[in-house]
Amino acid sequence: MNMSGSAKPWGGRFRENTAASVEAFTASVHYDARLYAHDIAGSKAHATMLAAQGILTIAERDAICAGLDEIQREIEAGTFQFRPELEDVHMNIEKALTDRIGAAGAKLHSGRSRNDQIALDLRLYLREQCDRFDALLAAAQKALVRQARHYLGAIMPGYTHLQRAQPVLLSHYLLAYYEMLARDRGRLADCRKRLNLSPLGSAAMAGTSLPINRELVAELLGFAGVTANSMDTSGDRDFAIEFVACCAQIQLHLSRLSEELVLWSSQEFAFVSIADRFCTGSSIMPQKKNPDIPELIRGKTGRVVGSLMALITMMKGLPLTYNRDLQEDKEQVFDAVDTVSASLAIMAELLENLTFNTDRMRAAAASGCLTATDLAEYLVEKGVPFREAHGIVGRVVALCLERGCEPEQLALAELRAFSEAIGEDVYRRLTVEGSVNSRLATGNTGLPQVKQALAKAEQFLGIQA
Amino acid sequence: MNMSGSAKPWGGRFRENTAASVEAFTASVHYDARLYAHDIAGSKAHATMLAAQGILTIAERDAICAGLDEIQREIEAGTFQFRPELEDVHMNIEKALTDRIGAAGAKLHSGRSRNDQIALDLRLYLREQCDRFDALLAAAQKALVRQARHYLGAIMPGYTHLQRAQPVLLSHYLLAYYEMLARDRGRLADCRKRLNLSPLGSAAMAGTSLPINRELVAELLGFAGVTANSMDTSGDRDFAIEFVACCAQIQLHLSRLSEELVLWSSQEFAFVSIADRFCTGSSIMPQKKNPDIPELIRGKTGRVVGSLMALITMMKGLPLTYNRDLQEDKEQVFDAVDTVSASLAIMAELLENLTFNTDRMRAAAASGCLTATDLAEYLVEKGVPFREAHGIVGRVVALCLERGCEPEQLALAELRAFSEAIGEDVYRRLTVEGSVNSRLATGNTGLPQVKQALAKAEQFLGIQA
Amino acid sequence: MNMSGSAKPWGGRFRENTAASVEAFTASVHYDARLYAHDIAGSKAHATMLAAQGILTIAERDAICAGLDEIQREIEAGTFQFRPELEDVHMNIEKALTDRIGAAGAKLHSGRSRNDQIALDLRLYLREQCDRFDALLAAAQKALVRQARHYLGAIMPGYTHLQRAQPVLLSHYLLAYYEMLARDRGRLADCRKRLNLSPLGSAAMAGTSLPINRELVAELLGFAGVTANSMDTSGDRDFAIEFVACCAQIQLHLSRLSEELVLWSSQEFAFVSIADRFCTGSSIMPQKKNPDIPELIRGKTGRVVGSLMALITMMKGLPLTYNRDLQEDKEQVFDAVDTVSASLAIMAELLENLTFNTDRMRAAAASGCLTATDLAEYLVEKGVPFREAHGIVGRVVALCLERGCEPEQLALAELRAFSEAIGEDVYRRLTVEGSVNSRLATGNTGLPQVKQALAKAEQFLGIQA
Amino acid sequence: MNMSGSAKPWGGRFRENTAASVEAFTASVHYDARLYAHDIAGSKAHATMLAAQGILTIAERDAICAGLDEIQREIEAGTFQFRPELEDVHMNIEKALTDRIGAAGAKLHSGRSRNDQIALDLRLYLREQCDRFDALLAAAQKALVRQARHYLGAIMPGYTHLQRAQPVLLSHYLLAYYEMLARDRGRLADCRKRLNLSPLGSAAMAGTSLPINRELVAELLGFAGVTANSMDTSGDRDFAIEFVACCAQIQLHLSRLSEELVLWSSQEFAFVSIADRFCTGSSIMPQKKNPDIPELIRGKTGRVVGSLMALITMMKGLPLTYNRDLQEDKEQVFDAVDTVSASLAIMAELLENLTFNTDRMRAAAASGCLTATDLAEYLVEKGVPFREAHGIVGRVVALCLERGCEPEQLALAELRAFSEAIGEDVYRRLTVEGSVNSRLATGNTGLPQVKQALAKAEQFLGIQA
Repeated sequence: MNMSGSAKPWGGRFRENTAASVEAFTASVHYDARLYAHDIAGSKAHATMLAAQGILTIAERDAICAGLDEIQREIEAGTFQFRPELEDVHMNIEKALTDRIGAAGAKLHSGRSRNDQIALDLRLYLREQCDRFDALLAAAQKALVRQARHYLGAIMPGYTHLQRAQPVLLSHYLLAYYEMLARDRGRLADCRKRLNLSPLGSAAMAGTSLPINRELVAELLGFAGVTANSMDTSGDRDFAIEFVACCAQIQLHLSRLSEELVLWSSQEFAFVSIADRFCTGSSIMPQKKNPDIPELIRGKTGRVVGSLMALITMMKGLPLTYNRDLQEDKEQVFDAVDTVSASLAIMAELLENLTFNTDRMRAAAASGCLTATDLAEYLVEKGVPFREAHGIVGRVVALCLERGCEPEQLALAELRAFSEAIGEDVYRRLTVEGSVNSRLATGNTGLPQVKQALAKAEQFLGIQA
Repeated sequence: MNMSGSAKPWGGRFRENTAASVEAFTASVHYDARLYAHDIAGSKAHATMLAAQGILTIAERDAICAGLDEIQREIEAGTFQFRPELEDVHMNIEKALTDRIGAAGAKLHSGRSRNDQIALDLRLYLREQCDRFDALLAAAQKALVRQARHYLGAIMPGYTHLQRAQPVLLSHYLLAYYEMLARDRGRLADCRKRLNLSPLGSAAMAGTSLPINRELVAELLGFAGVTANSMDTSGDRDFAIEFVACCAQIQLHLSRLSEELVLWSSQEFAFVSIADRFCTGSSIMPQKKNPDIPELIRGKTGRVVGSLMALITMMKGLPLTYNRDLQEDKEQVFDAVDTVSASLAIMAELLENLTFNTDRMRAAAASGCLTATDLAEYLVEKGVPFREAHGIVGRVVALCLERGCEPEQLALAELRAFSEAIGEDVYRRLTVEGSVNSRLATGNTGLPQVKQALAKAEQFLGIQA
Repeated sequence: MNMSGSAKPWGGRFRENTAASVEAFTASVHYDARLYAHDIAGSKAHATMLAAQGILTIAERDAICAGLDEIQREIEAGTFQFRPELEDVHMNIEKALTDRIGAAGAKLHSGRSRNDQIALDLRLYLREQCDRFDALLAAAQKALVRQARHYLGAIMPGYTHLQRAQPVLLSHYLLAYYEMLARDRGRLADCRKRLNLSPLGSAAMAGTSLPINRELVAELLGFAGVTANSMDTSGDRDFAIEFVACCAQIQLHLSRLSEELVLWSSQEFAFVSIADRFCTGSSIMPQKKNPDIPELIRGKTGRVVGSLMALITMMKGLPLTYNRDLQEDKEQVFDAVDTVSASLAIMAELLENLTFNTDRMRAAAASGCLTATDLAEYLVEKGVPFREAHGIVGRVVALCLERGCEPEQLALAELRAFSEAIGEDVYRRLTVEGSVNSRLATGNTGLPQVKQALAKAEQFLGIQA
Repeated sequence: MNMSGSAKPWGGRFRENTAASVEAFTASVHYDARLYAHDIAGSKAHATMLAAQGILTIAERDAICAGLDEIQREIEAGTFQFRPELEDVHMNIEKALTDRIGAAGAKLHSGRSRNDQIALDLRLYLREQCDRFDALLAAAQKALVRQARHYLGAIMPGYTHLQRAQPVLLSHYLLAYYEMLARDRGRLADCRKRLNLSPLGSAAMAGTSLPINRELVAELLGFAGVTANSMDTSGDRDFAIEFVACCAQIQLHLSRLSEELVLWSSQEFAFVSIADRFCTGSSIMPQKKNPDIPELIRGKTGRVVGSLMALITMMKGLPLTYNRDLQEDKEQVFDAVDTVSASLAIMAELLENLTFNTDRMRAAAASGCLTATDLAEYLVEKGVPFREAHGIVGRVVALCLERGCEPEQLALAELRAFSEAIGEDVYRRLTVEGSVNSRLATGNTGLPQVKQALAKAEQFLGIQA
């Protein structure tokens, strides 16, 4: 249904009705309706302030707030009818309010514009998402920490370049992802801090001549303060870009964990088994059991990055204050929120449904000369310069490759043929346990270090070890 | 509702039911249902081939085709119930078919896999979109050409660096966009050519041991041939990336035209007036009339580029054949299709609703020494080397800037003080018409050239001039 | 020159010389040589720690530090020869050191790997860049603030949708960009905080069995602490992505300012004049004076965004710890650093070379019914509900458009025909000064508000007003 | 060195010298000098045409061509001095020419602008790169085909979701990449076709009043024609975006192959061994041999994608014709050219240096119930509907998993307990050879099909089998 221009809330100067195709192309209510609760909360705070400033009467304020509460209940009950010809969530709610309570409703939009109203709604929404994401990240961290506790002591081969490199603790590996997610929480906390300022009262971009009180609205809505410049505020989407950039980093972290779960689920690695109820099968190959969840999470990385790119491209070269281009921000933000939160939630669940094949991992760590670095460092302790030691061990490894054996399987005399600095005490350094447990600097993979890191993480997350 | 693993079409080897959260995370039917018609067309062709090869009986084939037709009718009538626990459009349709016609339905999936089935559906869909986009591009070209015809002869200032540069014909400007869209059509035609190959019969990735006939299916579906390698085919999304890259180029072109319509709608330029019914107003500023359509089109550029980035990121580093990551392709493709086709359609409409202010344009072209290059080229014709001529005219311009006049307003004696090569005949070269109409090389802005280009475009588009 | 495998620092186990094409493809020293000072500082701190831990003697430490100082002097004097066959900055410096001081040099690489070494270098480099960028951002803010002070009181039309919207102060406009850059400084400070942790001692990814002291190295290099998990540290590039994301936001802000400088330099706006020495001309059109600087800054946005996308794509789906893919990080980081710092520096200079045409701006603000909102708010103060007031003023505007006049040019009787609430006092609200100076909420464009914001900015930046 | 404004080739109207910082920020000659040969070829063709049209004398033409030849020789000998204050390659060469031959040189720029000149240079350059890339792609295809021929008959497990799926021929796998590169060649050929039009004579954007002959220049330079609209031509970079989009697709293909080479080089897969001279080692772990080449190629994907995003972002929202933003195109194009061509070249070399461990591959193909689909299709041939067959085989597989055996190791009676349709003839279908060689549809993995595809590829590439 298209409305006559003069039926639009802005129609006074228009001589033609809006074309139906234009209404369809420009409407946003089919997605921004998602912001109804933030819009209503903002309007209630605005009305409360207007009454405090004498712009509304107390009775008008009460009528507005009661009307908005009723509308919110109807929306939540699914009985509210959003109308595309009313363009967006703001106008739909305001129109419904005015239809119900009359003149008081028509006074609500005093001293504000849709430009600062949408900025308000989006900030409130993203502030909430920051908190929700923090909880989701913590839940994923808990899943990692629980598995790290469960498998404490299990040894796996650490890789660089996907080549077996050195023996490490599986728990150390799991805690690496704990650290990544910790940084993600930090980034989101900083993002939240920057977006937690009230834009309301910037109006279209110049402010308003009505005697409003921006600080009161900010206080009512729990903001830390108000934005500093109305022209900046009107066209600012820094906070949305920063939020989605945080999302991209989270999804990148998940993509790395997913890649490894896919690898480790292969028959070649067989380091991990995903519970049947977390896999699906093939429509043609009856034997298949596929790691769909990590694959999908990995695949969704593109989607989040795409949203980031979309927002950045949207902002490029826009003149100051509000331009209609900015309407394109919400779907990208919503998609990033939905994608990353769903990925985090299912990843946390998935982590609980993994069984690690620790025997196979340990066997892999014991094969491929993974203690070569230990041998080199042993030589350093005996006074051999590291570069020289590296060269000596390189030759030991070449011999092992030729024989198909591990350094610890060489006789002492054989080892001493490479360097006389080698003594009987070398052998305990060449076992996988000896290797792991000699790495004792902060953040290293030695058991005491990992225990400490684990305890710290558990304490931070409030987990009973 | 979650189904027991063994109720899934692939459940035989599974011991646990799929987790509800996994079903929710992995289901695609809420968006791939859009491909129902292509899926059904593909299945009918597949069944026809299976019957021709003796794998199905004629009766089974007919039951399948009739069943599929019925399902299609129900989907189109809105009475078909898609079920998320059946994962995707393929399984939903196959299950419904088997529920209706029994064993014959259970035979349909012989010699194919969902891997080649979705590749088929997506290729059929994109082939259709190539044709639809070609028509949309042609419609936008027609709108440009009609305006170019309507305003033939009108002169505007051409800009470089957004500085007035030289007088040009408005029609020449409009035909520049005609050319861009012509390239877009060419790119899509090439993309179509590459994707118009049938993937069916690649099955999971190795092919099938059943005696199928891939060429027959291809023929039935109007493909130019079959893909050459089953492993490549199974994981190939080149065609989707190429299609979305074409989309990005189209939207870039529209973003440029939109930028100019926004500029030209400003009070400062005031070169164009957009009909009221193609604009909207402000919730706070009663005098505003905003060019929302071009702003939104420009803003949507980010969205299409984001989809391209999403697809590319998705493919990066994937091992061969099908990985579940690929499921993420469809929403990006659909969004690009919807965004670009809506933008093209509304831009064509918008173009019809523009009124150019040709007086203002002409006045702008007559101010700012825009015929300085004509003066330099006049000097070249008189034998002055171009670099010298450029310097001479630079000094003429400096004088004009000082006086606030145009070169044609200088007396002959004044002009000759700069160069004795200047004669009385210079003045007809210094008018805007003189300038425009001296540009007579192919593709230049001279009226005869523009008339020719216009006639060619009209003929190509089948427009009666 | 290609070296025999065994001549490489890692060559012990290799049986073939590296192919020359491989050396060429994998070498990074042609760009990572830029990190020489950070590499040397890191090595000196590492050596100091090794000596403190008894792994080196004091004499060895001193030889190493003296050797490194000498190498640094040679690099800075341009006499040091970097050799591609030595792969990277680390090996070039270590080899040169060993060539000079012998065995002590060969001991330097004890307890570390190139994996943690490059992470160290890059963190040191980016920490420095955070500080440098903070100064560059402050310099650009100062330029904005100086112009805001200079033009205090000048009135311009504020725009939304590039349509004239309401009168604002030019200083308010300039301070909007001050705010954007302030957020950029905040983001970089948060980024710096996160990257200011020492990775050294993570070695390849498992740590080391040598008795190192990571905290001491961190202290010597001014880090706030050490990273928490060696496997995470080895493959972490979060800090680079976060830094480049900050860069992208800065460049986006500059792109918006640039867009407006380009617009305002057009003959149509003519709001600003850029000094000749900040423009260039045309090779063919003698009258042209082009705003190249803002155009180039705007164009470079793509470049910075491209670097961000490059880094994100690089990380997608990488398994844990170091993979050679990560080598691709540095060129992107360097390019973003160079591009954004050059853009900031030249923008600060450019801002000082702008002359605003305040007469023209004021005239533009006085035309186009820009005080329509003031009239509506005036009516609100007289008790008319805002929505009703908006409609009334819309009709006033329609009349003005028809007559080609401004609301303040209508007689009181004419105005009262639209609403009896209008009285004689309306006229002082309808002037541009009346409009601007009635906007008195925090962050609004009223003169007192802007004066306050300006004073605050000057104080923050340490400018004498 | 900064030149006085009037010393610039465009300086006539300027009153101030260009600021040194502006010269540094805007200069492009440090990278566009790479286009010297194309610039000179274009200028010679332009001069030849000018002479043919009587705008230059024959003597002037000859002086110009000889002068340009001399300059080209000096550039190639490294004795030519490019000067940044002359901005770009065009002005450096033109100035040098005029310094040498005087007035004739100053006449060269008649009827053209740097706007069409750079478009010409870039089109010539990219046309050349299209041809060079075609050869590089063919070389990589040859390497694939040679290995496919060498290993013809070797069986490997095909994967979907990185789970073993079905036995396939290694040659079939290698030919999948042949197909991808074939599509890349097709895309580049289409791109070449679209860019192979001469832009010269569009001048700044309006054309020229001099009596030039665009078609003659096009013919001299081997173009298929001239561009159709001077305004479009001046600001068109479609061809650069399309070329870089082709580059991105190539690098994506290489990233997939690289991912698999990295996987296959792991100790867990051990399917391939890369020659020592194509690997490098670790600075700390003496046993390491890393697949650096494929890792770097994979990592460089981000770089190429970043260039594509940079170009797209650059073009977004630019008004028509030349804007200085476009200067940012070249570095992105050059980087994409260098990155992709180096990656293709080294990948072709690398492919020749691979040894596949076919025993291990075959063993992997024989384990994991990879012939389950064969069993299901066997049942279909016996009349069991496929869905039912799939379920039956799912249960067979569950038994095999429990027992740790393969289907072919079950006794006939055991198999018949699942379905009476199974007979003695099933066993030859359950071997890996039986499985592979039953896949006989076009493009499938059966040996006859692969032989045919191989022969076709060899013929196409001109390889003697």
